[in-house]
Amino acid sequence: MAGEFELIRRYFSDARADGFVQLAVGDDCALLAPSPGMQLTVSTDTLVGGVHFPADTSPADIGWKALAVNLSDLAACGATPRACFLAITLPSADESFVAAFAEGFRACAAKHACVLAGGDTTRGPLSVTVTVLGEVPAGTALLRGGARPGDLVCVSGHPGEAALALARWQQGERVDDEAQRRLLRPAPRVLLGDALRGMASAAIDISDGLLADLGHVLERSAGNGAPGATLQVDALPARGALAALPAGTRLQYQLAGGDDYELCFTLPPVRQAQLPAIAQATGVPLAVIGVVDAQPGLRLRDAAGAVALPARAGWEHFA
Amino acid sequence: MAGEFELIRRYFSDARADGFVQLAVGDDCALLAPSPGMQLTVSTDTLVGGVHFPADTSPADIGWKALAVNLSDLAACGATPRACFLAITLPSADESFVAAFAEGFRACAAKHACVLAGGDTTRGPLSVTVTVLGEVPAGTALLRGGARPGDLVCVSGHPGEAALALARWQQGERVDDEAQRRLLRPAPRVLLGDALRGMASAAIDISDGLLADLGHVLERSAGNGAPGATLQVDALPARGALAALPAGTRLQYQLAGGDDYELCFTLPPVRQAQLPAIAQATGVPLAVIGVVDAQPGLRLRDAAGAVALPARAGWEHFA
Repeated sequence: MAGEFELIRRYFSDARADGFVQLAVGDDCALLAPSPGMQLTVSTDTLVGGVHFPADTSPADIGWKALAVNLSDLAACGATPRACFLAITLPSADESFVAAFAEGFRACAAKHACVLAGGDTTRGPLSVTVTVLGEVPAGTALLRGGARPGDLVCVSGHPGEAALALARWQQGERVDDEAQRRLLRPAPRVLLGDALRGMASAAIDISDGLLADLGHVLERSAGNGAPGATLQVDALPARGALAALPAGTRLQYQLAGGDDYELCFTLPPVRQAQLPAIAQATGVPLAVIGVVDAQPGLRLRDAAGAVALPARAGWEHFA
Repeated sequence: MAGEFELIRRYFSDARADGFVQLAVGDDCALLAPSPGMQLTVSTDTLVGGVHFPADTSPADIGWKALAVNLSDLAACGATPRACFLAITLPSADESFVAAFAEGFRACAAKHACVLAGGDTTRGPLSVTVTVLGEVPAGTALLRGGARPGDLVCVSGHPGEAALALARWQQGERVDDEAQRRLLRPAPRVLLGDALRGMASAAIDISDGLLADLGHVLERSAGNGAPGATLQVDALPARGALAALPAGTRLQYQLAGGDDYELCFTLPPVRQAQLPAIAQATGVPLAVIGVVDAQPGLRLRDAAGAVALPARAGWEHFA
């Protein structure tokens, strides 16, 4: 057989079994052996060429990101990655594209011990759908709906950096290496998610922008009497090019920029003292940026008082 | 939030938890509770508009087929469907399309008790990627690599009907209702797969054409000394429009036509007497069409002797 089957074989046939993945690529289904006492966590996300990454993104970066954005969902649940499935649609059987894509995809998979267990290759406009499976001790998954009034709102990393890098790239401006890496090779916060189990009351990954994603947490937590939050904008972490922006512009990126794949989580205040140790153990900067409260909606404050919400609060694929 | 999120909510938010799916749509991940003593079977397949279905296919039929082709992979492993994940890419937030697509998708999911547990909606050229999870008692999954010399080669249904219906549709000819249903609303052979566990020595679903898919079985069974098979072309089942074709044309559809989603399986001859009972219990016609042997490759015979293989032996997306 030529064509599709050869392409898959050549670049993805090293998918190998382990304790969890008992049979990978090559049969009608993959066979997996879930671990006793664990729940499975599953997520699926599609990246479309020209929509979720610039058309001139390198194939290796597309490969990395396609898996990383999915691992970020596992991280938000506190799950350990176990297996992934790759469905890739390509305009043609372009071997150099597939080779480079596979290199980036496999680098991300190897870094997080996530076994490629199956997939599909089809012809059509470029898009990549990845489904990831992770495991978490039963009953301990981090969910969106657990925030309570008085919990601290926390974020990892420096939200806004990825959106700023994208804007500068699109304007043909110079983007520094670290910012470009944040955009093209996002680091899913798997270690942090693991550390937050039994610690955070709710968590989400920031793919659509901090305000939009925190909004999802509050919406799901309204039943706990926690439908709102007040954020201190001066507490939002920034560095480098992001920190150098005028305050209003910076805030727009920090609150409404998507694609960061950092975690936003809520923390009972009694656990605040443990944050520095978690940041140190995971190598991820953590910041407390606000407090969950009983008043519906999001409010921004700085030293001088109330601050207006940015006009565009989150990324909407169909907006 | 408008746009993407509203669309998903409106048509897919009735995804509900059951014993297996403990948390469905609405968080970063779905939470699943695998059953003790079972292995998970997972498969993913993409349908691209204009490639895997004619551009004028109704949205409801696309919805049905996107899930059915994946359930067919579970059937080939003898697995019971448990959960599915839907990643759909649409050119625009077309509500009438989504409503009709959801109706077809959900009809197929309900028929097979497969819970929609999550997904993603993105903007771009029309394509649908579904990932299905099933369960099978540990160690009993039907695989491609179990055929042995002397095993009977069997097929369900009437391979070739879907390809014939597609060809006639594309030529603007009349297609009878039953043939059109085979093409647009394929019936995944889930009950048959279940009945074949502990019975068949190997199985595969016929998505790429009987010869191509039987070839995959033999390739994976070569290590058992079973790298080939001889088929009796007079034993290939046909009815209606397919049976009315001239022999050479009919054979081309039967052996090389894709999209049937029937099962091809191998059976130790000692179990042949049980086939009629399985056919009756599952409501699926079954036929013995040949024998696995030790000579590599596929050979065709009729009453007069050897028959040449069709020129185009299987569906290649990149060919």
